[in-house]
Amino acid sequence: MNRTRSKLYLIPTPVYRQKDNQTLPEYTLSVARSLSVFVVEKVQPALSFLQWIDHPMKDFELTLRVLNKKTPDHEVAGFLKLFEQGDVGLMSDAGAPAVADPGSKLVKLAHERGIEVIPLTGPSSILLALMGSGLEGQRFSFDGYLPLDDKKRVQRIQDLEKRSLTETMTQIIMETPHRNHMLFELLLSTLEPETHLCVACNLTAPDGWIRTSRVYEWQQQPQPDLQQKPALYLIFKSS
Amino acid sequence: MNRTRSKLYLIPTPVYRQKDNQTLPEYTLSVARSLSVFVVEKVQPALSFLQWIDHPMKDFELTLRVLNKKTPDHEVAGFLKLFEQGDVGLMSDAGAPAVADPGSKLVKLAHERGIEVIPLTGPSSILLALMGSGLEGQRFSFDGYLPLDDKKRVQRIQDLEKRSLTETMTQIIMETPHRNHMLFELLLSTLEPETHLCVACNLTAPDGWIRTSRVYEWQQQPQPDLQQKPALYLIFKSS
Repeated sequence: MNRTRSKLYLIPTPVYRQKDNQTLPEYTLSVARSLSVFVVEKVQPALSFLQWIDHPMKDFELTLRVLNKKTPDHEVAGFLKLFEQGDVGLMSDAGAPAVADPGSKLVKLAHERGIEVIPLTGPSSILLALMGSGLEGQRFSFDGYLPLDDKKRVQRIQDLEKRSLTETMTQIIMETPHRNHMLFELLLSTLEPETHLCVACNLTAPDGWIRTSRVYEWQQQPQPDLQQKPALYLIFKSS
Repeated sequence: MNRTRSKLYLIPTPVYRQKDNQTLPEYTLSVARSLSVFVVEKVQPALSFLQWIDHPMKDFELTLRVLNKKTPDHEVAGFLKLFEQGDVGLMSDAGAPAVADPGSKLVKLAHERGIEVIPLTGPSSILLALMGSGLEGQRFSFDGYLPLDDKKRVQRIQDLEKRSLTETMTQIIMETPHRNHMLFELLLSTLEPETHLCVACNLTAPDGWIRTSRVYEWQQQPQPDLQQKPALYLIFKSS
């Protein structure tokens, strides 16, 4: 395996694909165009991404393997064979691969086998949200989704708020788009009035926006339109 | 202020500036080139960055204000006047502004005054390291620098290791380049042998690399060359 010196490239992909690419460096595009073997979270978004960047090969000339949360470990191990064909690209549905998605399993295996791993620059809503929040950026935590159970959900929000205070740390959570409004209301009713809440909605899209206010200020305003849009929520309580 | 509709653009800058830019999207470059007013962490790196991207204006035509950790709050408040001149760009020495640097103070003020904040895509060693680590990416925490005191340092490493296990969470820390070797040795002598340790060194530079191994595997290998290079350390213990 080591003799082939094939590499694993991690290719970020934008959520929103405007006609003129605003988020991918030319180098990331050129690496993606040079590869013919990909491990992807879902086939259709991957093919549409490759088409969007004008990949020179036709769909049937490409090798695509699916790695999602249902992929059993032995199948992931089988992907190592792909490196005999050459360099491999890893892509998730959108955003930075291996962050908040199952792609990290392949990256971990690559390290175990001595395959060089090369992460490429591109958009990550988590990082863009943190930059744009104005909240504590020296220390932060990405906590993913909240529990589905209502009681546990409230408890978790309170825990995160407390931790942001005791550890001077911005806490970042996400939600599936159709539950955005429910989560937003729950945050307003659960967090302390003085706590800072940042909402980052559909960043990098033309209608994307990011806003930080204290909870009591959000309560005084009309609810923002979060309908079916990817959003992140950042919580910070200061003393 | 609101009438001018000036915006605050957050402009990531690469640590390593190779002749051909590999990390900045053309859109980020074009925004940076269109601005003449900047708030920067340090003047010299900012000017050299602007020169590197072929900014069309001469140094003396630009307005540059310094925002670093010593800048008093009233001076940061004074930067709001800059928005009367037009859009403002925020840059740190290297990487994503307002992440692990004091720029977030200006972003926070912008939100308070209703100024639109637009984070642009570019390189972040924290995110690249997480992507490339193969460690848990569903939940992670950036913890910044360890305490300087030796005893507290060891305690903190043990706390982070424990937390990575109990919360299934990758823990990311950083170190100033001249202390890399000391920290690396301390990590090897403090962490459990089975714990995963990822070292991400000088990512995006030609000699950059990232490697994840268990602690006992690192111990069996020659120490990597971390001399004077920016590095991040990712810790993950699984049950």
